[in-house]
Amino acid sequence: MLPDPIRKFVEIFAKLPGIGPRQATRIAFHMANQGKNSVSEAAKAVAGLGNLSVCASCFTATLANSVCAVCSNPKRNPKIIAVVEKETDLTSIEKTGKFEGRYLVLGELKKDGILNEMQKLRLKTLKNADEIIIAINPTTYGDINAEIISQELKNSSKKLTRLGRGIPTGGEIEFADEATLESALEHRK
Amino acid sequence: MLPDPIRKFVEIFAKLPGIGPRQATRIAFHMANQGKNSVSEAAKAVAGLGNLSVCASCFTATLANSVCAVCSNPKRNPKIIAVVEKETDLTSIEKTGKFEGRYLVLGELKKDGILNEMQKLRLKTLKNADEIIIAINPTTYGDINAEIISQELKNSSKKLTRLGRGIPTGGEIEFADEATLESALEHRK
Repeated sequence: MLPDPIRKFVEIFAKLPGIGPRQATRIAFHMANQGKNSVSEAAKAVAGLGNLSVCASCFTATLANSVCAVCSNPKRNPKIIAVVEKETDLTSIEKTGKFEGRYLVLGELKKDGILNEMQKLRLKTLKNADEIIIAINPTTYGDINAEIISQELKNSSKKLTRLGRGIPTGGEIEFADEATLESALEHRK
Repeated sequence: MLPDPIRKFVEIFAKLPGIGPRQATRIAFHMANQGKNSVSEAAKAVAGLGNLSVCASCFTATLANSVCAVCSNPKRNPKIIAVVEKETDLTSIEKTGKFEGRYLVLGELKKDGILNEMQKLRLKTLKNADEIIIAINPTTYGDINAEIISQELKNSSKKLTRLGRGIPTGGEIEFADEATLESALEHRK
């Protein structure tokens, strides 16, 4: 019943993270109603993503044939590496302005904790590090993944760490789980 | 700090309904990581929306120079019209298979209840109807809009109605407001 261009758009966009068929349909009609100029600008913005490749050193999406801004910065310590799942995790850590090492982007992790070949190869590029911070979400699945990543990296670094746990800003003590509270007590300041 | 193609994508896609800058960034990296072929397919799907125009009769997005599937169906009663805000409202009503009239798509409504020129022109195309169902969301803002639309349509139809209120499937009586419960009691069956 939907016009063909809407159907095709929904087919592709409904699979993107956080978007389902319902929202994709709404977005499709919304864009269509914005008119031809907006549509062609949006199409160009999508096509522009094709100019990205991965940084040869940390594997974050970056302009083709270039090293990313972090890895090419001589002030960053290449011996301290934060292993993250997604580029958006990297972006969030960068926003703190407090991390002086570099990154390794693994790509989306499976819930079963099994790393794919590409992820194993990426981990193998890490050698002789002073510290590797396994900056994977402290969720149930994330913890399984972090455990497996630790195994892979056990000979790659002097030190393996994870991000500290505690009550997040705006969080409520009442609803914090025991492990979080225990860590928050331990790191009180 | 973000690569240029990501930044441009986020600029446009963060403004779409239900997507903010954070999700747009995540989607951008996700698409970039899917590789050039997927990116170019997605760009084509977006560009395809440019082939849509609005139905000359009900103003839903449809292939250019054509009348939509509903309006061109001789079995539909053109004297009974459901006025909806968005195409996705139309789609939801169509899915019931229980509405035999046709539609008028108004386009996104402002929260202040003021109709724009295009919306007023669209409403003016409705004349000599047997029934016009003002199928606008029964929210506080929607009710204001519905009231204003009623005013515009007071000489256009023998009957003006709105969708019935009641407890939705899966809803809880405890949390229903008084107007909803009152209507649910009235229309019990």
